[in-house]
Amino acid sequence: MQVFLYRNGAQKVEEGFSAEELPALLADKTNVVWVDFSGETPELLKEAHYVMLNVFKFHPVTVEDALETRNQPKVEAFPGYIYFVMHGVKPEVTSVTNFVTKELDGYLGENFVVTFHIERFKSIKHVKQSIRSSPTACQRGAAYLLHDILDQLVDLYMPLIDDFDRSINDLEERVFEMRRNNNVVLEEIMDLRRSLARLKRISARQIEVLYRISHGEFGQIPEPVLPFFRDVHDHLLRITDLAESYRDIVGGLFDIRFAVVSNKTNEIMKTLAVLSAIILPLSLIAGIYGMNFEDMPELKSRYGYFVTLGAMALLSIGLMVYFWRKGWIFQPEEKIEPGEEKHEGGNPD
Amino acid sequence: MQVFLYRNGAQKVEEGFSAEELPALLADKTNVVWVDFSGETPELLKEAHYVMLNVFKFHPVTVEDALETRNQPKVEAFPGYIYFVMHGVKPEVTSVTNFVTKELDGYLGENFVVTFHIERFKSIKHVKQSIRSSPTACQRGAAYLLHDILDQLVDLYMPLIDDFDRSINDLEERVFEMRRNNNVVLEEIMDLRRSLARLKRISARQIEVLYRISHGEFGQIPEPVLPFFRDVHDHLLRITDLAESYRDIVGGLFDIRFAVVSNKTNEIMKTLAVLSAIILPLSLIAGIYGMNFEDMPELKSRYGYFVTLGAMALLSIGLMVYFWRKGWIFQPEEKIEPGEEKHEGGNPD
Amino acid sequence: MQVFLYRNGAQKVEEGFSAEELPALLADKTNVVWVDFSGETPELLKEAHYVMLNVFKFHPVTVEDALETRNQPKVEAFPGYIYFVMHGVKPEVTSVTNFVTKELDGYLGENFVVTFHIERFKSIKHVKQSIRSSPTACQRGAAYLLHDILDQLVDLYMPLIDDFDRSINDLEERVFEMRRNNNVVLEEIMDLRRSLARLKRISARQIEVLYRISHGEFGQIPEPVLPFFRDVHDHLLRITDLAESYRDIVGGLFDIRFAVVSNKTNEIMKTLAVLSAIILPLSLIAGIYGMNFEDMPELKSRYGYFVTLGAMALLSIGLMVYFWRKGWIFQPEEKIEPGEEKHEGGNPD
Amino acid sequence: MQVFLYRNGAQKVEEGFSAEELPALLADKTNVVWVDFSGETPELLKEAHYVMLNVFKFHPVTVEDALETRNQPKVEAFPGYIYFVMHGVKPEVTSVTNFVTKELDGYLGENFVVTFHIERFKSIKHVKQSIRSSPTACQRGAAYLLHDILDQLVDLYMPLIDDFDRSINDLEERVFEMRRNNNVVLEEIMDLRRSLARLKRISARQIEVLYRISHGEFGQIPEPVLPFFRDVHDHLLRITDLAESYRDIVGGLFDIRFAVVSNKTNEIMKTLAVLSAIILPLSLIAGIYGMNFEDMPELKSRYGYFVTLGAMALLSIGLMVYFWRKGWIFQPEEKIEPGEEKHEGGNPD
Amino acid sequence: MQVFLYRNGAQKVEEGFSAEELPALLADKTNVVWVDFSGETPELLKEAHYVMLNVFKFHPVTVEDALETRNQPKVEAFPGYIYFVMHGVKPEVTSVTNFVTKELDGYLGENFVVTFHIERFKSIKHVKQSIRSSPTACQRGAAYLLHDILDQLVDLYMPLIDDFDRSINDLEERVFEMRRNNNVVLEEIMDLRRSLARLKRISARQIEVLYRISHGEFGQIPEPVLPFFRDVHDHLLRITDLAESYRDIVGGLFDIRFAVVSNKTNEIMKTLAVLSAIILPLSLIAGIYGMNFEDMPELKSRYGYFVTLGAMALLSIGLMVYFWRKGWIFQPEEKIEPGEEKHEGGNPD
Repeated sequence: MQVFLYRNGAQKVEEGFSAEELPALLADKTNVVWVDFSGETPELLKEAHYVMLNVFKFHPVTVEDALETRNQPKVEAFPGYIYFVMHGVKPEVTSVTNFVTKELDGYLGENFVVTFHIERFKSIKHVKQSIRSSPTACQRGAAYLLHDILDQLVDLYMPLIDDFDRSINDLEERVFEMRRNNNVVLEEIMDLRRSLARLKRISARQIEVLYRISHGEFGQIPEPVLPFFRDVHDHLLRITDLAESYRDIVGGLFDIRFAVVSNKTNEIMKTLAVLSAIILPLSLIAGIYGMNFEDMPELKSRYGYFVTLGAMALLSIGLMVYFWRKGWIFQPEEKIEPGEEKHEGGNPD
Repeated sequence: MQVFLYRNGAQKVEEGFSAEELPALLADKTNVVWVDFSGETPELLKEAHYVMLNVFKFHPVTVEDALETRNQPKVEAFPGYIYFVMHGVKPEVTSVTNFVTKELDGYLGENFVVTFHIERFKSIKHVKQSIRSSPTACQRGAAYLLHDILDQLVDLYMPLIDDFDRSINDLEERVFEMRRNNNVVLEEIMDLRRSLARLKRISARQIEVLYRISHGEFGQIPEPVLPFFRDVHDHLLRITDLAESYRDIVGGLFDIRFAVVSNKTNEIMKTLAVLSAIILPLSLIAGIYGMNFEDMPELKSRYGYFVTLGAMALLSIGLMVYFWRKGWIFQPEEKIEPGEEKHEGGNPD
Repeated sequence: MQVFLYRNGAQKVEEGFSAEELPALLADKTNVVWVDFSGETPELLKEAHYVMLNVFKFHPVTVEDALETRNQPKVEAFPGYIYFVMHGVKPEVTSVTNFVTKELDGYLGENFVVTFHIERFKSIKHVKQSIRSSPTACQRGAAYLLHDILDQLVDLYMPLIDDFDRSINDLEERVFEMRRNNNVVLEEIMDLRRSLARLKRISARQIEVLYRISHGEFGQIPEPVLPFFRDVHDHLLRITDLAESYRDIVGGLFDIRFAVVSNKTNEIMKTLAVLSAIILPLSLIAGIYGMNFEDMPELKSRYGYFVTLGAMALLSIGLMVYFWRKGWIFQPEEKIEPGEEKHEGGNPD
Repeated sequence: MQVFLYRNGAQKVEEGFSAEELPALLADKTNVVWVDFSGETPELLKEAHYVMLNVFKFHPVTVEDALETRNQPKVEAFPGYIYFVMHGVKPEVTSVTNFVTKELDGYLGENFVVTFHIERFKSIKHVKQSIRSSPTACQRGAAYLLHDILDQLVDLYMPLIDDFDRSINDLEERVFEMRRNNNVVLEEIMDLRRSLARLKRISARQIEVLYRISHGEFGQIPEPVLPFFRDVHDHLLRITDLAESYRDIVGGLFDIRFAVVSNKTNEIMKTLAVLSAIILPLSLIAGIYGMNFEDMPELKSRYGYFVTLGAMALLSIGLMVYFWRKGWIFQPEEKIEPGEEKHEGGNPD
Repeated sequence: MQVFLYRNGAQKVEEGFSAEELPALLADKTNVVWVDFSGETPELLKEAHYVMLNVFKFHPVTVEDALETRNQPKVEAFPGYIYFVMHGVKPEVTSVTNFVTKELDGYLGENFVVTFHIERFKSIKHVKQSIRSSPTACQRGAAYLLHDILDQLVDLYMPLIDDFDRSINDLEERVFEMRRNNNVVLEEIMDLRRSLARLKRISARQIEVLYRISHGEFGQIPEPVLPFFRDVHDHLLRITDLAESYRDIVGGLFDIRFAVVSNKTNEIMKTLAVLSAIILPLSLIAGIYGMNFEDMPELKSRYGYFVTLGAMALLSIGLMVYFWRKGWIFQPEEKIEPGEEKHEGGNPD
């Protein structure tokens, strides 16, 4: 448990209070108190449980939720405080198709913020560093301090979005290459589609939470702080928009791949048909002059063989011209210029 | 009919009252009374009908509904009580594609809960055991007792979700195997899709019921108990989310299977085309030298036969190289790494 | 025109009043009056027009609507009465794909119900029989009488739903049979899809009507009667749910059929490819030894012919083994067990 | 500019007033005044501009809109009047796939209606004729007069709907005929789909306009006239419903066509495969006995040739039986009975 | 920074004030002040930051947003002013598939408009020119001035819509041409689809902004100016409608292309099948008479050879007639008349 205390007008944030000192600190409404629980050691869980239930007197069902990690993002109002769950992304993912989220539970009261998380949150680390060096964030009150934490948390979605951008660009090139194993490409598209759907679903929930927080539903957040939360809300909205537009793109890729494959089949069929159309008639001619009738005048003619060969050559040239006219063979390749694809956004700020 | 009575301040729950004693028990507003009807024997139905209509004086249309088992989940307010229908899942399903639900009808009043169900409910059994050993649940009032029942009921959806998870994982592997009978795979996908749609529909209705119960619409549920119902609501929301994400996956599987099949056709066509392209020209050459013209100089040349065989060999090698360059034959197999698929959730708590 | 009159406290329903007597009957607010117009003879239409406009003084636009039969289900409030349109199904349909609806127009006032329908309604016949034998339905007032009519009307949708269930089960088997004419199967699927969409659309409108009637929007329906209408509403909701789930199934059937066909193509291609792959090389060998070169040593060898035949046999066996290993031929058939499909509901109550 | 004036209680409608007389006519609130501008000559536009802006003092932005013809259907309230835009269909379309709409702009005040349209409207012509012969429509006030105009306008959508019905019936037959040029059929389906989407979009907007007009949002329309507008609204709703159901059908046609084509491919493949399967083995036999080995005992046998021919015949019969059993050849044609398709409605009233 | 000042009743707009003079100008509520910041030089940014924060005292979070360029269109109310973000299109795009938007941030107060943009806006240039030549726009107040700017901004979307119209018309022709490289056509369709989705998304957001501005939500915009904003709103609605209808068309193009390709495959297969069906039997006949049996009576008959040739000719003619009857060959080409496609709108005003 880490406790940060900002006394009204002070130049520095104080740290290191124990659970026993908390009630006194909270009683002074001009103080801003931040209690952060990080980890999942039995002692920490026990302490968190005790502090939440007995010092802050939070509703038992929220305390139980907070100490578990299987919640959807949400926000609920209780008399004197709000309880919220938000999800951050773990930065150490190897591939976008299996990005992992981590849960941040928290409470916001008039003059306190309580946060609980099992995984480390870079955003919380940043805010701690920032208030240690300057207590500005605390001067605007507990709600502003919470805004700082959520703002950082949402910002950390951007690298993930950039990874998606890169993966989709890669895939867009591979989708036109017939040499790639089709099943591999299909699976990649599917994984990406599924992963984007997951991202979409997660952010939709978070947007709802931030919408409710930032539109004045809860008295714990003073009017002048609301625009800051609205800013976080807009930021998340933009991420969801990107996820949505990526889903469009990836959904289209499946169709393209499918069309590319069936176009390839078409091409193969054309090759086979042209080939058969040219060789089968020649073979028939050869077969006819291979018959053993006694009376076949051509066989005895002087240049019969050469005339036949010439006729074969002419026939095959004629057929080739016919198929070329029909556009089945010798078509010049139109080049696909991959060009500089214009995806929306994706750049971190 | 089983009647459970908790007198305010008592240490134990009392049981075994008759229909005649009920009015007196209910008259004391500090009591908590739970009447449970389980089964479908004519006597039980008659007793339930009598008790509901004459003791509790519930609206006749709800009593009629309650004793039938063909209702959608719903909740309705009446003066002095609410009537609800919820669905549980039967645990003894052999396959997720034909999971079966069972109906729980009930009433909640200021100081009573009435439940009616034809099938046995594990969740109700649990709650009975729990209040027999300790009356804690009853101490918080009738609404809390109902929360306990619904909480258990919703928890029992999790094993079903896990079964779905397993079925989908199985299917995801089979979908890339061309050896499987295609129609069997298609039917499995369809069954799963349909089954998930059913699950989705059922939970959507239940969520609505729980939403209305847990957001203070009904006066029978005191303010402090609402968060507990909200917890059940969130739990069900999570189940629906999983069902939704499974639907995405299964919907994608159909497309994949289809693409796998048409890719296979493509491959077969390639084999056929390459084969024809190599053998037909050779056959033509053989056919030509099988003609019976009298004057075919090559036939008389010393090494004509061997030169021809050599030319055939060269031609076929040349064609093979051509098709190999074109990527039609001898492509190295790219491996699909099934990898550790990351589905969301699915773990029971 | 049939007039039914129930005088408050009477033991029997009276019948056979004329248009001239109606104003007096209606003036006594304790009476319950039901006026039913059935048919489309010019006299009846004239009488209905007169009674509605001059006796009941309904709004002319509704009277005009009522006497026509091209209305969507709807309900509208007017001072002193409500006007509604509902649709029933004709029972004598030959096939679910062209089921036909018939229109019931009506008015509900404080103490009267007026119904107009050109086609005969089994549900109205039932209610007439029922009130003739016992006036219970009338004792609860005009609104309850109307509930009785609509309840019966909605119940008669169930046989249609059962027909759909049966048609879909049939179709589900046929869809895997390649022998059926494909276009016939496609047309059947399309017809069913369209027919379900029609059913869906019709019930959606009716649900809206019943929702408005059953949720207290209109003062003509007293509070204690509302639950009865809610029951009808829930019943219709269930029918719509079934129609919705059938649409999912039928939509899937099209995809399955399509996949079955393209899988068949795949199989045919495999047959063709294997066949060509085995016979073309053998033909080439035969062609080579059919050449007429003078100097072909094999031709003169003693067992040349038999060695060649043996080589051909070996080659074809080798190719067969190769294709068998590849899974293109001699695959054991996996059986599709049609099993006991679990559709939701469909059983009449 | 045509001005119609109905003085309260008069037996006839008066015509032919000038812009200068209008203020006096409007000042008498018991009059009903209809000013209709039709055409796009510069003088008319100038006059319309002057009258709207200076006589009626309409908001300049609406006057500007009214004189242009590029507005979406809409209705807006201003102090003392409402401004609306509605679209009619031109009757002289050659094909449903390029039906054209025309714009009607108008204003409704307490005692006046102003309409502006560049194209001629049959509905307006009708209303003029009707009020010239009998001023009934005017007796119910300006709002009722407007209802008359809009009712006629909406009625004229029905012939278009009938044309769609006919086009779709035609297309439904063509879609199963493989002889039709595929691209032509595809284009027809696409055009119809697009055209229906357009119709859907247009009516959706108009429905919104009529919904707002007919549900008491604007004070200019007295309570007793509202049901007449609701009738127009319901009529338009029915048209939209038909458009919606046609879209379902046409959407399905594309899928059917696609399935018909791929089924055809399947059949062609079957023909090719059966043909190859029968002839290639026979050719191989012929090839074998065409080899030039010196020692081929069969060649010398007396009936070798006839035995071989007989074996060929037997083999081909055997193969035919095999493919017939497999259902690849000689299947009896199942007939598709086009039957009497049951579309909803489409009949004008 | 450019400052425009209109003093109530003045004949001309004054320019060229410094940041220091602003507070005095703003204090006089009868003035209309427009402050425009254009560019991204550090000095300008610094000045804008200073003026917004210290002169106008805008909320810091909006100032921060305004000076960045990564915002979604939005509008927010603050005490005394509203803050909005709108997007315009850059005119200099080379292709519609990568059109680019640019951001306009702004504030509207009772008597002032503040605009900030990094890119040049043609619409702002126009408004500046217009108020320099005549101060009409300013006479109606700050809100009307803002309307002028937004109206111009939205008008500039029309050329983009026209470009889309042209691109789609081009594509609609190409989609039926089989000669075009399939992948190129697919990519073009995809790019257009994606681009339209982007346009749709952008305008949807802007519509929301304009809806809120034009429906009286903000006190800064006086009642009489609202219709002007509603006009801009309707204009944007129309653009979105066009974008929506283009999406339908482009979505259909993908399906058409796919169908065209698979129809082509069908045709190729037909060619191959007919060819094989005619030549293979002839080859078999030739093969049979190429056998070396000693006793083949036909070989010795006088006209055996010619009879055989004649039989071959007859057989091939018979087969051709058969396939022609079946509709596989020699079908007359039905012409596709591209006709005058009727897209909705697209014409600039």
